[in-house]
Amino acid sequence: MNAGETKTIFKEDMHNVFYDILLKVGFTKEKAKQSAEIFTANTVDGVYTHGVNRFPRFVQYVREGYVKVDAEPSLANSCGGMEQWNGNLGPGILNAVIATQRALELAKENTIGCVALANTNHWMRGGYYGWQAAKKGFVFIGFTNTISNMPAWNAVDSRLGNNPLVIALPFNDESIVLDMAMSQFSFGAMEMAAIKNEKLRVNGGYDIEGRLTDDPSAILQSQRPLPAGYWKGAGLSLLLDLLASILSGGLSTHQVSKNNAEYAVSQVFIAIDPGKLHNHSVMAETINNIIADYHQSIAAGKGGKIVYPGERVLQTRENNSKNGIPVLKEIWEQVLKL
Amino acid sequence: MNAGETKTIFKEDMHNVFYDILLKVGFTKEKAKQSAEIFTANTVDGVYTHGVNRFPRFVQYVREGYVKVDAEPSLANSCGGMEQWNGNLGPGILNAVIATQRALELAKENTIGCVALANTNHWMRGGYYGWQAAKKGFVFIGFTNTISNMPAWNAVDSRLGNNPLVIALPFNDESIVLDMAMSQFSFGAMEMAAIKNEKLRVNGGYDIEGRLTDDPSAILQSQRPLPAGYWKGAGLSLLLDLLASILSGGLSTHQVSKNNAEYAVSQVFIAIDPGKLHNHSVMAETINNIIADYHQSIAAGKGGKIVYPGERVLQTRENNSKNGIPVLKEIWEQVLKL
Repeated sequence: MNAGETKTIFKEDMHNVFYDILLKVGFTKEKAKQSAEIFTANTVDGVYTHGVNRFPRFVQYVREGYVKVDAEPSLANSCGGMEQWNGNLGPGILNAVIATQRALELAKENTIGCVALANTNHWMRGGYYGWQAAKKGFVFIGFTNTISNMPAWNAVDSRLGNNPLVIALPFNDESIVLDMAMSQFSFGAMEMAAIKNEKLRVNGGYDIEGRLTDDPSAILQSQRPLPAGYWKGAGLSLLLDLLASILSGGLSTHQVSKNNAEYAVSQVFIAIDPGKLHNHSVMAETINNIIADYHQSIAAGKGGKIVYPGERVLQTRENNSKNGIPVLKEIWEQVLKL
Repeated sequence: MNAGETKTIFKEDMHNVFYDILLKVGFTKEKAKQSAEIFTANTVDGVYTHGVNRFPRFVQYVREGYVKVDAEPSLANSCGGMEQWNGNLGPGILNAVIATQRALELAKENTIGCVALANTNHWMRGGYYGWQAAKKGFVFIGFTNTISNMPAWNAVDSRLGNNPLVIALPFNDESIVLDMAMSQFSFGAMEMAAIKNEKLRVNGGYDIEGRLTDDPSAILQSQRPLPAGYWKGAGLSLLLDLLASILSGGLSTHQVSKNNAEYAVSQVFIAIDPGKLHNHSVMAETINNIIADYHQSIAAGKGGKIVYPGERVLQTRENNSKNGIPVLKEIWEQVLKL
């Protein structure tokens, strides 16, 4: 089997495989179904790193007890337009679905609502919750902290997380969704490029000699990914960790990093109900006009197309739904052995 | 006079010079005082590009009627934790102070509050409002759109603004304040480097041949600044413009760009009152611990120090307050002629 070789898996089959494994590790039927749906949806959307590729580690964390299959989030504090919840170390994906839903309900009541969630687990692909919220007509801003995996700007040791930030809003019965880690590339993307023996599009970190490089293997070796925008991504990462920690009352990156595994992270979910501010058609027209102008951008390379965040996802979703999903053989065999 | 030559101006003198000029162009005494204070404070804090260096253009915009000296912001729509305001093309700095104050009041009532401000003008240094809000104990998230001045990732023509984002929170009777434009460098910073004949620390854009460069003059010539983090800063810029436009009901970057000058922009001010969530000492301890860990980062270069966003500002503020402010002679002469 060659590294990087793929196999086509249809989404229904993937869902069923995930579902059976989740039942086996103790999920209820309903939670197994919902979790299998999210892992499959992330994969169908092309975010393999936080879909099928991540599924084995998720199952491992359940087996090792970091993720409590039976735990459900509980309301810790309700305060006007804001609520603090305790994730009770339940599955991060299910906790995040509930937190998103509560943020939308708070936004329905107060126009703007916020849920801060302590003691939860990895939400996999943050964009998933953005797509869900925007599809229902809401503006969504969400972020999570992570274990330390990125040095501050000009530092050599990792004391920051790459703390993804998601911003989403409705567009043409679908969504515009920005889902960005604070490192120039996620570790999943660098691992994927390393498996395929590909270079990164731009420098993504340092090698062990401290030189900037586009070689993903060298960065995985040095563990010195580059913050997106140098000091800017590093600064934003620090602020997102500060906000996630103080708003939720949960652990910050440096505390999460004292554990051997990444668990008990802190997250924030902000929703705004724009339907309260003006009617739907006004908003839709504004968004349409902005995107129409944006699409007139002249690409630097021949045949290049300038896309908005989330635009390629729709195409990938359609392709993968119709033609099946290209999954790394190595990964799929790991999944089947779970 | 050599380019880059500076002259020391004491902050009280700077304030008085600004104040007199503002009176001359029609500001009331109270508004002249407040505006002079903000321009001076930005300069004292070392943000010369949005303090003294920008003052001549501000006065020019007042004289040309883009900024209406008499206009005051008015409430357009009140809706739970959120309000929409019309800036009525008044001075952006004064509008932003009022919008920030209203966001804090909404946060006091609802824990989280948001003011979206349409039809306002350049807020100069967004960080100013972050420092103000955090000093009063609040978490602050604010952003503005701008005239188009940055191409989308892989595009050659500017259809995005560099839409600064500010995040601030209280720390040790002072603040941690992130204030970042979505371009790797602000135009002000590139103009300053060009005047001083300095290179940028990292590549900041393209030359007219489409090559990445650290030469600020070449970027000012091509008008192709690099988004911070390539596609990441570009995506974030687009989303911030979308949010500012749909939440405020005001103009988006492409609409602002139809005018000959940058006016009638849209802004968002979100405040959270963390005192509602837990007592002050818990929050202070959390922040102290995060910063203490962050400060343990090992710098890549000898003698390097890893600082948090806003940390250097405190030192600059102290120096400039005590020893006077180094102002480019060329700029100060422009100011005195206003």
